[in-house]
Amino acid sequence: MQPQSRDCRFAGKLRPWISYYKRRQSRAPNRQLTVLRCCCTVTEMAALRLLNFWAMLVTLSVCNGWLFENFGSYRNREADEVALWPLPQKIQISGAAFQLSSAGFQITHANGSTAGPSCSLLQNAFRRYFDYIFGNARKQGKNQQKVFDSELQELQVLLTAKDPECDGYPNLKTDESYQLEVDQPTSVLKAANVWGALRGLETFSQLVYEDDYGAHKINKTSISDFPRFAHRGILLDTSRHYLPLKAILTNLEAMAMNKFNVFHWHIVDDHSFPFLSRTFPDLSQRKGAFHPYTHVYTPSDVKMVIEFARMRGIRVVAEFDTPGHTQSWGKGQPDLLTPCFSGSSPTGTFGPVNPILNSTYDFMTRFFKEVSTVFPDAYIHLGGDEVDFSCWKSNPDIQKFMDQQGFGQDYKKLESYYIQRLLDIVSATNKGYMVWQEVFDNGVKLKGDTVVEVWMNNNVDGELQKVTGSGFTTILSAPWYLDYISYGQDWQKYYKVEPLSFQGTAEQKKLVIGGEACLWGEYVDGTNLTPRLWPRASAVGERLWSDENVKDINSAYNRLAKHRCRMVQRGIPAEPLYIGFCPHEYGGL
Amino acid sequence: MQPQSRDCRFAGKLRPWISYYKRRQSRAPNRQLTVLRCCCTVTEMAALRLLNFWAMLVTLSVCNGWLFENFGSYRNREADEVALWPLPQKIQISGAAFQLSSAGFQITHANGSTAGPSCSLLQNAFRRYFDYIFGNARKQGKNQQKVFDSELQELQVLLTAKDPECDGYPNLKTDESYQLEVDQPTSVLKAANVWGALRGLETFSQLVYEDDYGAHKINKTSISDFPRFAHRGILLDTSRHYLPLKAILTNLEAMAMNKFNVFHWHIVDDHSFPFLSRTFPDLSQRKGAFHPYTHVYTPSDVKMVIEFARMRGIRVVAEFDTPGHTQSWGKGQPDLLTPCFSGSSPTGTFGPVNPILNSTYDFMTRFFKEVSTVFPDAYIHLGGDEVDFSCWKSNPDIQKFMDQQGFGQDYKKLESYYIQRLLDIVSATNKGYMVWQEVFDNGVKLKGDTVVEVWMNNNVDGELQKVTGSGFTTILSAPWYLDYISYGQDWQKYYKVEPLSFQGTAEQKKLVIGGEACLWGEYVDGTNLTPRLWPRASAVGERLWSDENVKDINSAYNRLAKHRCRMVQRGIPAEPLYIGFCPHEYGGL
Repeated sequence: MQPQSRDCRFAGKLRPWISYYKRRQSRAPNRQLTVLRCCCTVTEMAALRLLNFWAMLVTLSVCNGWLFENFGSYRNREADEVALWPLPQKIQISGAAFQLSSAGFQITHANGSTAGPSCSLLQNAFRRYFDYIFGNARKQGKNQQKVFDSELQELQVLLTAKDPECDGYPNLKTDESYQLEVDQPTSVLKAANVWGALRGLETFSQLVYEDDYGAHKINKTSISDFPRFAHRGILLDTSRHYLPLKAILTNLEAMAMNKFNVFHWHIVDDHSFPFLSRTFPDLSQRKGAFHPYTHVYTPSDVKMVIEFARMRGIRVVAEFDTPGHTQSWGKGQPDLLTPCFSGSSPTGTFGPVNPILNSTYDFMTRFFKEVSTVFPDAYIHLGGDEVDFSCWKSNPDIQKFMDQQGFGQDYKKLESYYIQRLLDIVSATNKGYMVWQEVFDNGVKLKGDTVVEVWMNNNVDGELQKVTGSGFTTILSAPWYLDYISYGQDWQKYYKVEPLSFQGTAEQKKLVIGGEACLWGEYVDGTNLTPRLWPRASAVGERLWSDENVKDINSAYNRLAKHRCRMVQRGIPAEPLYIGFCPHEYGGL
Repeated sequence: MQPQSRDCRFAGKLRPWISYYKRRQSRAPNRQLTVLRCCCTVTEMAALRLLNFWAMLVTLSVCNGWLFENFGSYRNREADEVALWPLPQKIQISGAAFQLSSAGFQITHANGSTAGPSCSLLQNAFRRYFDYIFGNARKQGKNQQKVFDSELQELQVLLTAKDPECDGYPNLKTDESYQLEVDQPTSVLKAANVWGALRGLETFSQLVYEDDYGAHKINKTSISDFPRFAHRGILLDTSRHYLPLKAILTNLEAMAMNKFNVFHWHIVDDHSFPFLSRTFPDLSQRKGAFHPYTHVYTPSDVKMVIEFARMRGIRVVAEFDTPGHTQSWGKGQPDLLTPCFSGSSPTGTFGPVNPILNSTYDFMTRFFKEVSTVFPDAYIHLGGDEVDFSCWKSNPDIQKFMDQQGFGQDYKKLESYYIQRLLDIVSATNKGYMVWQEVFDNGVKLKGDTVVEVWMNNNVDGELQKVTGSGFTTILSAPWYLDYISYGQDWQKYYKVEPLSFQGTAEQKKLVIGGEACLWGEYVDGTNLTPRLWPRASAVGERLWSDENVKDINSAYNRLAKHRCRMVQRGIPAEPLYIGFCPHEYGGL
């Protein structure tokens, strides 16, 4: 929320139109949006006079009544002003504003809530959001004596499920919906469980703004909200560069601010194996990791990431990609990878996992048994992308095996043979699995609850048709490879993606359960991750949470510019959308 | 310097060839370089056996003798190992290594040096580079008792000029050359003045590496160095986004590590006027700045930037761009800008500076009088780019003036009229000026010492020909607009630019005095500036400092990857070039 002088408050109501008028005159490159300044300018005052009569009508309705938000038809300017991100499904904001003070406001468990002070997930969230709301303005002391008429004293959190899941983990079926009634002296946030409460607390914190005098205010508001898609993920790659724990936790913090709920942890790959396995410590200790002590994730590091994520309603889905992308595995596990040959001599280099040895499957059984206990999520991502067949082709033993199995020269059959055995191994641990699209494309037999991740950008609609036509759930990441940077406001490109635009039945579309923004690690490490990912990933966040009719790019620009300032204020160095400034922009630096 | 186990040290000598061999096999995207790992791998050992005999010959020569560096012919592997950046003009590195300890080593003023302990610029530099060299390993205490045979005890800094310029400012004619002789027990850094000493101290600090046991070492080395170009600049834009002081100082720190010597401070523009003028405080206080207190540079902020830069041998050239790019000036200075008209009515909007009023020139006289005292550099950048004539054309008074002056409809003549008067005003302050190329293109009469900055990318060679053909000095920024980001290793594109490749006489080429890497501020603020600029700007740094024959992209990759790790270790969050890691990469996070 930008600070605003009193005299300009009235003009502020007209700002979207004034801004449109100014924008048409602007010479900004690529017709970029002109950033709104914090107070009314000469131009605005002129426009104000011209639009005076009409403005009065609009303003009266804004100030005195509810504006029902039906996002298909028109925009709610009050909602733009507080810059909710992602935009809730249903929202009514009134012009009536209440004050909040750090001494006189509290977040409490409602009478009758199935959660209480022993629900530490919720207690931690109360603290976190109280801090976000009051920041440096937080004062010590008990409730103040003087209570103003229009003051908000309490946000009561009311959980209704018999088990509010205080000590649980979110999953694909988690109910994240919530209802929020902001009124004085008591507001109520109602949700079935802690996961919905977390989402509602984030929304509540976004509703609070500072008025011209720095006072904290919130408007009378009614919200009913739920996510459009169940799987809203961010992929980080900790193999091409090691990401220090702090960078991962900062990202989880930003994810919660944008209502993401899956951290897809692409934890190992060709380049390094930072996952310290208790069963096979040599995988990271013997040159698999960039460094055996400084560049690994110990069991307690992993636990910390999982718990930090859980406290924010975020699942951690670990990916252990095989049979390709496994060069680093070979360093600490002899005979796991296929020796490559030149003619009849081994070259000394290695290819994908060796699919013809029993020792391979023994290893995978023990390894994934450990992984399935380390990561509590119901899903493991098994990768399966980009298998290069050239080394398999060069190896005489593999050729022999192909003949024995009757695979001919079809190495996809060999890949499927491997994957099939791996899937059976993982199924035996009672985990579901996610795979990259090639596994489906190659005709591997998949369990019914498999999630197929569509990442190739050449035929997205066709692939979604095929995968859902075969009855599998799918998530989309192809349009959201955020490591591909370019000049300008590329967030708009990500924002405009409509995941259900492919031809298919209603049943098929239900099988698209979400998507992921992927930040592959070739050019990203702890030095540049956060500003490169945020707020570009926020565009994906709103696409996956809000109603499909929420697609006005101007409204999105205005809200996102403010939302990124909010992230900066909360200590996330999210980069700017375009020219302008944030009222509080030093915190994170 | 990557840590290296003892057994692999020998193999390490062969790494450039092994790396080439591996690279040919790699499937990395766009044939990117494979990053070298810190110790010898199986592949390396195999290659080692194959190349055994030849390797011995090479290694013997490396270990026992000098390798004279003549960069046109072959690369010095020892220099690659310590990763000097930018590469010195002449360097000999021996295999003989000396130890340094924080307790037993000191940087001192040589007997006979014209500078002593009262030269605070040098004293500060001694402290800074001592810290860089020993970092956390720094120990308290006087010189240790036990002195090893091969220990380096002292770097003596010998300044020879009668006035070593301890309290001066660098300028375009500054002699930045230095000679460095590293030997035990005493090394000598010789330079005419403090500016050469600063460059030599940076080089000395880059020569120090850690051996396998964490001991600090330096090889016997002889360096004679000087810059190829006198003007090596970085442009930052503090108008489109305000940059907090800390971000500017961090950038100056990084500039010194890359031997840049000009901070081109594009301090104001259309979008905001953060420069707090004592003479015209309203320019920033009355809505010219994004915020009158939090988003301005006060006189003491500016002083601090200038002094911080001076201590690092960096000139601060401020740019006050007129007559275009001045929207923000109009907020606090009524009647300065041209009122735009629609027919016979003013539209309420404004165009470039109004060139027909005497009040304009009165204002500029007083304003630039202040600017010329605030900024000690001999040059002021006066801008003069991208003037939009449409508003001038719409204004009846301007049309009348055009008629009176006999300019017809040639608004370039009006622009030149304004610039000419401005140049005379600035000349009267005894300052030289820099201008963007349009001022030259439009035929404005320029002083002989004017520096013309070539920024348009459509006909760089032709423009350089024209400017130098007319006898003016010029700097090149067109190929180095680093705000235009793209996926991949774009530093290579910047690195490959040869500023003197245009057709011209030797005399003309001497007039190209350097270049600038520009980071315009549309999409950059304190959240993303440093990792976006560094190490991409380092590529420009070497191009402008080192010999023109220094252009081997593989050598550059290896050295720059290590140099960026050095920057990270020194607290500059410079982003990675490609896949890999740094031994010490947490410091700046």
